[in-house]
Amino acid sequence: MSSIIGGIKKRFSHAATVSASEQTAPVPANVEFKGYAVTDANNWSTFDVIHFQPKTWQDTDVEIAITHCGVCGSDVHTITSGWGSFPTPLVVGHEIVGKVTRVGAKVKGFKVGDRAGVGAQIGACYSCRSCKSDNEQYCPQKINTYAGKYPDGVKTQGGYSTAIRAHEQFVFPIPDKLESRYAASMLCAGLTVFSPLKRHGAGPGKKVGILGIGGLGHYAVLFAKAMGAEVYAFTHSESKVDNIKKMGADHVIVTDEEGEFTKPLTQELDLIISTRDVSDNMPLNMYLKMLWVHGKFISVGLPDKPLPQVMAFDFEANGSFMGGSHIGNKKEAIEMLNLAAAKGIKPWIEELPMKDAQQAVERVKRNDVKYRFILTQDLA
Amino acid sequence: MSSIIGGIKKRFSHAATVSASEQTAPVPANVEFKGYAVTDANNWSTFDVIHFQPKTWQDTDVEIAITHCGVCGSDVHTITSGWGSFPTPLVVGHEIVGKVTRVGAKVKGFKVGDRAGVGAQIGACYSCRSCKSDNEQYCPQKINTYAGKYPDGVKTQGGYSTAIRAHEQFVFPIPDKLESRYAASMLCAGLTVFSPLKRHGAGPGKKVGILGIGGLGHYAVLFAKAMGAEVYAFTHSESKVDNIKKMGADHVIVTDEEGEFTKPLTQELDLIISTRDVSDNMPLNMYLKMLWVHGKFISVGLPDKPLPQVMAFDFEANGSFMGGSHIGNKKEAIEMLNLAAAKGIKPWIEELPMKDAQQAVERVKRNDVKYRFILTQDLA
Repeated sequence: MSSIIGGIKKRFSHAATVSASEQTAPVPANVEFKGYAVTDANNWSTFDVIHFQPKTWQDTDVEIAITHCGVCGSDVHTITSGWGSFPTPLVVGHEIVGKVTRVGAKVKGFKVGDRAGVGAQIGACYSCRSCKSDNEQYCPQKINTYAGKYPDGVKTQGGYSTAIRAHEQFVFPIPDKLESRYAASMLCAGLTVFSPLKRHGAGPGKKVGILGIGGLGHYAVLFAKAMGAEVYAFTHSESKVDNIKKMGADHVIVTDEEGEFTKPLTQELDLIISTRDVSDNMPLNMYLKMLWVHGKFISVGLPDKPLPQVMAFDFEANGSFMGGSHIGNKKEAIEMLNLAAAKGIKPWIEELPMKDAQQAVERVKRNDVKYRFILTQDLA
Repeated sequence: MSSIIGGIKKRFSHAATVSASEQTAPVPANVEFKGYAVTDANNWSTFDVIHFQPKTWQDTDVEIAITHCGVCGSDVHTITSGWGSFPTPLVVGHEIVGKVTRVGAKVKGFKVGDRAGVGAQIGACYSCRSCKSDNEQYCPQKINTYAGKYPDGVKTQGGYSTAIRAHEQFVFPIPDKLESRYAASMLCAGLTVFSPLKRHGAGPGKKVGILGIGGLGHYAVLFAKAMGAEVYAFTHSESKVDNIKKMGADHVIVTDEEGEFTKPLTQELDLIISTRDVSDNMPLNMYLKMLWVHGKFISVGLPDKPLPQVMAFDFEANGSFMGGSHIGNKKEAIEMLNLAAAKGIKPWIEELPMKDAQQAVERVKRNDVKYRFILTQDLA
């Protein structure tokens, strides 16, 4: 491991960028921005410790010393170049929880010492129609938590690291009753399914299908059930059936590649959240037939390859829809975290020290995780 | 032309099938069921006059002497085998208007002499969840107006013919102020766009895109405008621009195959109704980008080939949806007809005698119609 990589040769600390207006805020002694980075796209699972430049401090920012960070499928898609090339060195991780170390003068919702989290989005324009309608996750100027760039050119680096700074809009308070290790992966995996469940009507009297029971899917089962829906979980792994029942699914259906399993469910489901991460062997047209009139099939999984081709006819028999969703807004994040705290919802996780990021991403790549890795801080 | 075809060798009249309970209803003298049929799938535009067996009479039925029948793209898809093989001899046509000649004892909404119409659906199960929730067009047992089959085995034949019988549920009253020639093509083309416009929120304050301005598209412009939406019409024909403005579109955009025209409209449209009938050269992923958050792209066009392949990512930037719609229910048909009568909405049509069906379907096939053919009765 190297601590000087990619031309970043000096240590960055907040001290260099403190603005006049927030110098009165409590400043911790030594927040150091360093993390486990992929430095060579050809060695996607090899991590080296780097120091990186944090976001240029602003009065609306919150700084967090990271204690936990989940390992998301997005991390693996990114560092394997499945979604295209990425800038190196890159620290991934966008399921971040820690302790607030510093708040800007204009921050209203946090104080030093609070537990707080950051998900997959770290910036937006704050002024467009999306931003002004609680749809900040759909802002065309949105900035991703890692592999993105701020308007001033500073690159965004993720949570396999010691600390992060973010505009208050993208920092979520963690309820007292919710342990940090449980909250972490809610901030991307959880929110990514909670938002479409919430926006598209999961609740009492509704039948919700969850396709693919991995990190996202297991959250979808937990949350759809907590929202009062009747939950149909679809998995290709016979071995997961008992676990999925324990998560609370009302029905667990083992899938086949021909879609035979869909037939008894014709026009039964109001909503399907698909967390499938690959397009191969996906009988999409059969899935659509399970939807009730105007029902929605929402793919929150983002396969590297295109979705299977469908006919316009495939939507006609039930006036159904296929579509997408992108994480969630801050209000939904807070509602989700409060729901989890109130109902004692605990994700199924495996904890590893951050230095074992390689093991974690390699196991995620081969789908060997039940159901989420949480990396714990070992650099700070 | 032959009057004895396909093994149907006797003349059918209602007299043979009158039930005891409706013998008291007024019975016209000589309703004869004959029509212009395609008798050889290899000669798709050649029509011969045949006699055919009508629906077995029931107390819930209405019988109509046809005066007008529109020529729908579905007719051409069917007889060209674009949607698969079809039973011969086949009389197509499902935009039917005429005069009621007979009503069953249980019929409440019609009397002999009324003007009435039939669209693309002629039967359903009348008892499923779809049928009981004003979604009869999504009944899994739905029966198409032609090329379908009743439970007793009688084949359904369409409106390029003298007369039709239908369950009252699938017969629509024509308002006095609406001429039959104008009403006819509303019953499929009009309803097919009216229903999704209505169900998916077209109205004041909404921006609605209409893609492809042919038979369906011109209705979509007329109705979306009448509903109060701001209408964006997309056409690849520079020559249609003036006409489309006359129809009432607020904006007319000439399209290109690369989708460049979509860029100034990123996240602008609440709803897109696509009447595109072919999948080739269709930059679907670009169309999706024009949608506002959770906006819907609804393809009411039913191309013979699959839709262009898309990535799950293509739906993610705006949480958009792609889907379908199937005609409309009876309530929507009545609302549409009343709206047309109240606002004086007139489709742009060209009338031809029914014997010129060949000319009509051949011109529809090559997209040479502005914007709908209406066949007028010449057999009865």
